[in-house]
Amino acid sequence: MENELMARRARLLGPNVPTFYEQPVHITRGAGAYLWDAQDQRYLDAYNNVAHVGHCHPRVVRAIADQAATLNTHTRYLHEGILDYGEALVARLDHGLNQLLMTCTGSEANDVALRMAQAVTGKRGFIATDNTYHGNTTAVAHLSTRRPPIGGWPDHIRRVPAPDSLAPLGGSLDAQPRAFAANVAQAIAELETSGHGFAGFMLCPIFANEGMPGVTPGFLNPTVEIIRQAGGLIIADEVQPGFGRIGSHFWGHDWLGFAPDVVTLGKPMGNGHPVAGVVARADVMAAFREAFGYFNTFGGNPVSCAAAMAVLQVIDDEELQQNAAEIGAYLLQGLRSIEHPLIADTRGLGLFAAIELARDGQPASAEAGQIVEAMRNRHVLMGRVGRAQHILKIRPPLVFSRQEVDFLIDQLRASFAEIPA
Amino acid sequence: MENELMARRARLLGPNVPTFYEQPVHITRGAGAYLWDAQDQRYLDAYNNVAHVGHCHPRVVRAIADQAATLNTHTRYLHEGILDYGEALVARLDHGLNQLLMTCTGSEANDVALRMAQAVTGKRGFIATDNTYHGNTTAVAHLSTRRPPIGGWPDHIRRVPAPDSLAPLGGSLDAQPRAFAANVAQAIAELETSGHGFAGFMLCPIFANEGMPGVTPGFLNPTVEIIRQAGGLIIADEVQPGFGRIGSHFWGHDWLGFAPDVVTLGKPMGNGHPVAGVVARADVMAAFREAFGYFNTFGGNPVSCAAAMAVLQVIDDEELQQNAAEIGAYLLQGLRSIEHPLIADTRGLGLFAAIELARDGQPASAEAGQIVEAMRNRHVLMGRVGRAQHILKIRPPLVFSRQEVDFLIDQLRASFAEIPA
Repeated sequence: MENELMARRARLLGPNVPTFYEQPVHITRGAGAYLWDAQDQRYLDAYNNVAHVGHCHPRVVRAIADQAATLNTHTRYLHEGILDYGEALVARLDHGLNQLLMTCTGSEANDVALRMAQAVTGKRGFIATDNTYHGNTTAVAHLSTRRPPIGGWPDHIRRVPAPDSLAPLGGSLDAQPRAFAANVAQAIAELETSGHGFAGFMLCPIFANEGMPGVTPGFLNPTVEIIRQAGGLIIADEVQPGFGRIGSHFWGHDWLGFAPDVVTLGKPMGNGHPVAGVVARADVMAAFREAFGYFNTFGGNPVSCAAAMAVLQVIDDEELQQNAAEIGAYLLQGLRSIEHPLIADTRGLGLFAAIELARDGQPASAEAGQIVEAMRNRHVLMGRVGRAQHILKIRPPLVFSRQEVDFLIDQLRASFAEIPA
Repeated sequence: MENELMARRARLLGPNVPTFYEQPVHITRGAGAYLWDAQDQRYLDAYNNVAHVGHCHPRVVRAIADQAATLNTHTRYLHEGILDYGEALVARLDHGLNQLLMTCTGSEANDVALRMAQAVTGKRGFIATDNTYHGNTTAVAHLSTRRPPIGGWPDHIRRVPAPDSLAPLGGSLDAQPRAFAANVAQAIAELETSGHGFAGFMLCPIFANEGMPGVTPGFLNPTVEIIRQAGGLIIADEVQPGFGRIGSHFWGHDWLGFAPDVVTLGKPMGNGHPVAGVVARADVMAAFREAFGYFNTFGGNPVSCAAAMAVLQVIDDEELQQNAAEIGAYLLQGLRSIEHPLIADTRGLGLFAAIELARDGQPASAEAGQIVEAMRNRHVLMGRVGRAQHILKIRPPLVFSRQEVDFLIDQLRASFAEIPA
């Protein structure tokens, strides 16, 4: 069955379409923190942050179904949906971030955010880390360290070394914040010299794709000071940390402790419905809205807004941020109880945990891959990140429970036991 | 009520967020070809091509609701949804267009299509008309004649004069195809000289945003010959003509009579659900898939595929392409029965009609605006296009009936009667 599906994929979708796992899983249904395959075997989902409030949450499903049956059209007509959602959302943001632009994907949101910084500064250049991912549009993909675009890397993008836990910038975790900032200062100087100028810096506030590498609150302070002096904007990509996942705070930037000019939202926002957005201060939004004639046909439609509103309400009513804090702490405790020579560090923020694997101080990529495959075969879905793909990533839906943590820890302990020290 | 909503929009969404009509309409529900406002007043929808098979079509709504309650996750797991849809879709395409990449918006689809042409040719440059619109990402917006991006227009984009009905290129409608092609040849030469090289040409096969200006089958033949000689790709943006709207053909490019290398899909594909896609030949898809590591989190998810599949099935089962041909012909006959000195030309393709207004051979923009406002006040929603916004655009859902045409014609006749000759 899986072989037949893989053959159809190759025929209909072409080569190099990514799948998870050596034996890809054929998923047919989902509920809460679980997915089931075609043989009705159950998998514990410890990876998918899109199904933020649980797979197929009945309240989100009902909101989508009811609104889809009532009206689904664009924002050139007036509708309360986007306004009610906008009010509920900006009420959860500080720092003067009080206006919303809705898109359908986080990539579109980041694509808009870049142009916001350009509109405010009148300049073109951007900085990101050299081990990040912010999306798949042409402009946003330029920020990521993937294959070079046709015509080569664009000159108005500079990538600074990402923070690293095995080999910290500046030689130690203590020195890392200032070393990171010094590289940003150097990149700003290069952009100004090149004539592009410096428009802004985009980051995930918990450095999720970088593997949450030894970064703690205050890390960004020296960098923020440099960016402010240079007149650039700071764009916080909240696609991974946002909406309560990290437990202690609703947003990653409030955990790290800085005031972004623009915040972008994506994956968890509609629990799988294609909805995303950009929140900015009024002056930033106005600069963008005057500089570009932006309209997004599906963006902010009533169904997307109903899905997003239901997600916010479920987070509140089921106290999922609180759950992320409590179950996240229990998860981290459990993960730290696993002992193995390969484990260099185990860290977590709410329901986002990372286990860094190293051998002789070098990334243990192959072993991280073995663990992920072993877990899949034990019916726990998780992934890995980091420059060398050597950091195990555990990022389950926020409805995770103690029982599910216990199962995960048992399976992970058993998986590690199979790996030679 | 509308004033309060406008005030909330200004506060929450910022300035310059587009609305339709001097008095924007507050829409609360929709069904078939009708929309209702908050006072339960009914409007005939003669504008929205997104609600392709009718607002809130019960079969599409049920497909979305059922799948959203069952599973909604990404394509890194295996699922039949994207494969079943891919098979059903490519069966409707000729010219070797047999592989599908799914996105969430037409803008994302066009953004990918540009990179496909770059991947195949190894070159960067693109050509589009100077009165078109292909979407809102940074890269795709470069093709549109909107406000210049920060840093100025990019040098790798060349815009050729759009075909025009009031002032045809080359001096006559007969001369227009070769004059258009000559401008494309000139733009290709400029791109090659500049060092960017020529990657491809993107067009809407019915030149919808240009107002369908005096273009007939075979129009593109001289241009196609030049593009083929130069080794560039032809990308057909089927967001407006596609899925049977033009009646005589399922796709615009088959009406115009050329073989695109890439076809992009958007608005009507999911009847309002945010789903879009790119169909390409296997060699083109492979070049893209090898050159870029593309993944779209929401793209091709089971709910989007269920919505898109339901749309295809409804088009078939309700014979909507046939309806577009029949009712479209009846609509065009009715529109042509309206006589007014301002009407320079009335033309149509299936359920897409355009009435060009001119005074002394010059675009009559103000009067076109007056007609659109008068129609809105008579509860018929339509729009306008063209370089001078002087062409009335009628583009209703495909479930339009004779009775609805009769109402539209009556109201339009009355609206024209109010305009001084």
